[in-house]
Amino acid sequence: MFIGRITGSIVSTHKVESMVGQTLFIVEPLRIDEKKKDSLKSTGRTFIVVDAVGAGEGEIVLCVQGSSARFTDQTKTLPIDAAIVGIVDSVQAHDAILYDKSTEGT
Amino acid sequence: MFIGRITGSIVSTHKVESMVGQTLFIVEPLRIDEKKKDSLKSTGRTFIVVDAVGAGEGEIVLCVQGSSARFTDQTKTLPIDAAIVGIVDSVQAHDAILYDKSTEGT
Amino acid sequence: MFIGRITGSIVSTHKVESMVGQTLFIVEPLRIDEKKKDSLKSTGRTFIVVDAVGAGEGEIVLCVQGSSARFTDQTKTLPIDAAIVGIVDSVQAHDAILYDKSTEGT
Amino acid sequence: MFIGRITGSIVSTHKVESMVGQTLFIVEPLRIDEKKKDSLKSTGRTFIVVDAVGAGEGEIVLCVQGSSARFTDQTKTLPIDAAIVGIVDSVQAHDAILYDKSTEGT
Amino acid sequence: MFIGRITGSIVSTHKVESMVGQTLFIVEPLRIDEKKKDSLKSTGRTFIVVDAVGAGEGEIVLCVQGSSARFTDQTKTLPIDAAIVGIVDSVQAHDAILYDKSTEGT
Repeated sequence: MFIGRITGSIVSTHKVESMVGQTLFIVEPLRIDEKKKDSLKSTGRTFIVVDAVGAGEGEIVLCVQGSSARFTDQTKTLPIDAAIVGIVDSVQAHDAILYDKSTEGT
Repeated sequence: MFIGRITGSIVSTHKVESMVGQTLFIVEPLRIDEKKKDSLKSTGRTFIVVDAVGAGEGEIVLCVQGSSARFTDQTKTLPIDAAIVGIVDSVQAHDAILYDKSTEGT
Repeated sequence: MFIGRITGSIVSTHKVESMVGQTLFIVEPLRIDEKKKDSLKSTGRTFIVVDAVGAGEGEIVLCVQGSSARFTDQTKTLPIDAAIVGIVDSVQAHDAILYDKSTEGT
Repeated sequence: MFIGRITGSIVSTHKVESMVGQTLFIVEPLRIDEKKKDSLKSTGRTFIVVDAVGAGEGEIVLCVQGSSARFTDQTKTLPIDAAIVGIVDSVQAHDAILYDKSTEGT
Repeated sequence: MFIGRITGSIVSTHKVESMVGQTLFIVEPLRIDEKKKDSLKSTGRTFIVVDAVGAGEGEIVLCVQGSSARFTDQTKTLPIDAAIVGIVDSVQAHDAILYDKSTEGT
């Protein structure tokens, strides 16, 4: 899986019928800064994902790709290859806190 | 999933029988401009996808990859790994409208 | 899916039994030239694919990857992740003909 | 599969119900140094994986991706695309020992 | 599929039970030299694969990725995403022999 920030959304009214009612978020994946190891930075990629947990824009979320994106009650019959399966509270690595939702933006 | 623009199509008369009658579009994936965050730009890649929604050249579409490309009524038995499952009306991210089909090209 | 040119083949006599009799081609994927948009160029990658349509060296073919490579009568039980499912006659994009099999090499 | 070092973990309290109780580690994949061939170095990527063997931070582990991440007793119903399936004791390549857990850090 | 050279192996004693007894090789994928087209060169990547054919270090082998890695008698229940399904005897492309096992190293 990967973690990424929800930075937007798309609207598609003409789509495969099973997709009606699904929220389509834009998620930009994050990785650990290679040099300093003390923060998360964008990989520069853009994914469209279906939200399976009720996330919102600006949040960092856990995303699953491939056939496993269909392994939730909500998504089991959908033609999707990526889904949000968790909202991230905190990320720690290399003995540091790289992200803490409770203090971000304060 | 990813979004991309349909920029062309291919013709293949000699193919696996189940593929007869399927439209094969060329889709060039888009991502958010890394620096300015205010527009979509091509990733430089070229995908061949089966159209499951009746899209047309020039449109921006939502594409699914992998085994999930078979999760529509039309594609369930096809040897394909990518399908168009929606036509995109609009894309918003970073508090801006990056694409709006209704005003594009006007 | 992707399109690529068959540029060679491999021989493997010692292999998983179900693979006996399968043709193993080398396919080099193609993409649309990013700058000029008027031709196809190699991505520089090298794939080994099973031929499910009777293609030949030099031809441009349509290839499927992943589990869907097993969705043809010939390949359904094979341990393969890539198959040729069509021979490409022509490719058009950006209002130009990028490839036409009938005139290539003439 | 790939090998990587566990360098951190994430916490997600609001997630798909089947994921409750699963340990979510950050794994940074390793590859053989291309020039010297005598050590392992990070690829710079960041994966989130479910631990299926009881691994710990700092260890080098064997990870599986895709649908096969669900092929363990613990993970068979989970919406995950990556799992730790082994703890690595040693890595040898190009006639050298690139990693030996028993002597690392001594 | 891809071809690669077996350059090493890993040892993992603590692993998912179904993996006991499986040989875990390091395979470095090969591609055709982009400029000269007359030889194979490493892509710089490092894969861990399960051997399903009795291959040995130094050999060039055919590898399958993804769910299809489970489509051999030996691997059908394993949590793996890559397997060796053939030992390569020869590779020809661009009207040249790029590899011939019978003469290599002589």
